[in-house]
Amino acid sequence: MRIAVDAMGGDHAPAVPVQGAVEALDQLEGDFEIALVGDPDAIRRELHVHRYGSDRLEIVPAREVIAMDDPPAASVRRKPDSSIVRGVQLQESGEADAFISAGSTGAILAASIFVLGTLPGVSRPAIGALLPTAADHPTLMLDAGANVDCKPHRLVQFAHLGHIYVRVLEARESPCIGLLNIGSEREKGNELTLEAFRLLEETDLNFLGNVEGRDIITGKCDVIVCDGFTGNVVLKFYESVAGYMAQLISRNAAETGANIDLQSICRVLDYTEFGGAPLLGINGVTIICHGDTPPRAIRNAVRVALKSVESGMVNHLTRELSGLAQTGA
Amino acid sequence: MRIAVDAMGGDHAPAVPVQGAVEALDQLEGDFEIALVGDPDAIRRELHVHRYGSDRLEIVPAREVIAMDDPPAASVRRKPDSSIVRGVQLQESGEADAFISAGSTGAILAASIFVLGTLPGVSRPAIGALLPTAADHPTLMLDAGANVDCKPHRLVQFAHLGHIYVRVLEARESPCIGLLNIGSEREKGNELTLEAFRLLEETDLNFLGNVEGRDIITGKCDVIVCDGFTGNVVLKFYESVAGYMAQLISRNAAETGANIDLQSICRVLDYTEFGGAPLLGINGVTIICHGDTPPRAIRNAVRVALKSVESGMVNHLTRELSGLAQTGA
Repeated sequence: MRIAVDAMGGDHAPAVPVQGAVEALDQLEGDFEIALVGDPDAIRRELHVHRYGSDRLEIVPAREVIAMDDPPAASVRRKPDSSIVRGVQLQESGEADAFISAGSTGAILAASIFVLGTLPGVSRPAIGALLPTAADHPTLMLDAGANVDCKPHRLVQFAHLGHIYVRVLEARESPCIGLLNIGSEREKGNELTLEAFRLLEETDLNFLGNVEGRDIITGKCDVIVCDGFTGNVVLKFYESVAGYMAQLISRNAAETGANIDLQSICRVLDYTEFGGAPLLGINGVTIICHGDTPPRAIRNAVRVALKSVESGMVNHLTRELSGLAQTGA
Repeated sequence: MRIAVDAMGGDHAPAVPVQGAVEALDQLEGDFEIALVGDPDAIRRELHVHRYGSDRLEIVPAREVIAMDDPPAASVRRKPDSSIVRGVQLQESGEADAFISAGSTGAILAASIFVLGTLPGVSRPAIGALLPTAADHPTLMLDAGANVDCKPHRLVQFAHLGHIYVRVLEARESPCIGLLNIGSEREKGNELTLEAFRLLEETDLNFLGNVEGRDIITGKCDVIVCDGFTGNVVLKFYESVAGYMAQLISRNAAETGANIDLQSICRVLDYTEFGGAPLLGINGVTIICHGDTPPRAIRNAVRVALKSVESGMVNHLTRELSGLAQTGA
């Protein structure tokens, strides 16, 4: 197995992605290699810092970089030798089984759609965000930002994507699906969710019904579906609250001299634990990490990528989505 | 001044509203009276618990109760002798200057619109949620749930309502307004926010531009505008995360024996501090409290109501909104 990692993506590239890749090779079990995609000299300098030499690590040159504020679709066309485009292409050419990047979300999304294509019946993929919860498992919320204006049937598609992903990757037989809404009653909601509720009821998914903002943290659902606007706001808000709380507690602990186990608290709220957001609905494995992600999150993203490839996630998705497309569901 | 408090509203009525009213009379400064609206016998029993007798507290009988799951608009029509309808009517008849309830949000909203009417140019009021932030002031987010499907010009109206409310009540000269969105760049957003951005730029408000989910907690804005669907999800999510964090910290402190100042941490995240959500855009002062609100929040809602009445908030809103309606803004 071979995982491509964008060495040029993120606020602290190439240092962070390179270190994350090195940690993955060091710490993760499994028969896999890593391809670091980007400027060879810059990557080598970083590898030198880690005094790392391994026959399981290869550099794949890419001379261009798509910046965070470059227009996503246009820069994917204009920069064919960028680390994002090259990295995604490695899957198409069979040289890699997955791609991980902490670069521009829009560009990763555009490159994945252009190069790999979408799965049967999927017009546009969704970003799945794994949210830490009070339960012993995260909740997969999708869409977290790829589709800011959604029609009701898109939310049903998100539900199917989330269902298959969680069933295959987390080995939960019948993942329960919630529709993010402003009240638990079926008559609550906006135009989008009222109709999506009706459509979700008609599926054979394990549909729990409406869930509210307060149900996210409890881990009541395996999968929460929402439009990409709401999902993006919730995701960014969550991360900021978690970060702020950690700051607040540690400041307080320092002031009072309290010997509080900050780590155990913060771990619960730590998005880096889950390593990144899988892009669901494309014909391949792409995982999007935060721009300011630490090496740990890159390592964990490699773990998720390995699991996705080993479990044959894309085949599962393709087969089941084809079935749904044929029955018109 | 006379503040009407719905004695029958909320999960622990009449105990909590009655205690909150008693605390308000005890602890808040100012020349005001409270009218407790509801079942006189039940209210008297509660007052007896507090051994309270005051000539500043009166009981206004209302024999019906609108339950949390009653259909809001229909029950406002069907239950004219409910504590919510009677409480709102006290403003219309000049017997009270404000109304506070922890009952059904939908019913409070419907009764306020039917009985008091809306201000010039406002077709439907917005719920303003005061969110605790890392800064030394809360952020007013609106709409928090009254308008789940919004057209762009409604967001502009929310911005004006929020601007006037914060300027008058918090004495901030030129409150800065943010548009909740999925990115800070002007070309980011869904159909709603893209157009709302353009419209907000044309106003003479202190418009900061787009803000993201992560900007809520920082207190970067005095006012954040969004559709009522997104606002409701964010509000409920925020409250649940705050509650969960408090639980997590206190459990951890108990286990490790850490002497952490839980109170100071939780206060930062404590929505009860702000006493409730003002309903903005109606011709009166209505403040909506949480169903599971503690007495403290009712007391603080009385404080906010007093401030709203003293500052002539409704007159300010009426005058400025009339001006805007005339200039077609």
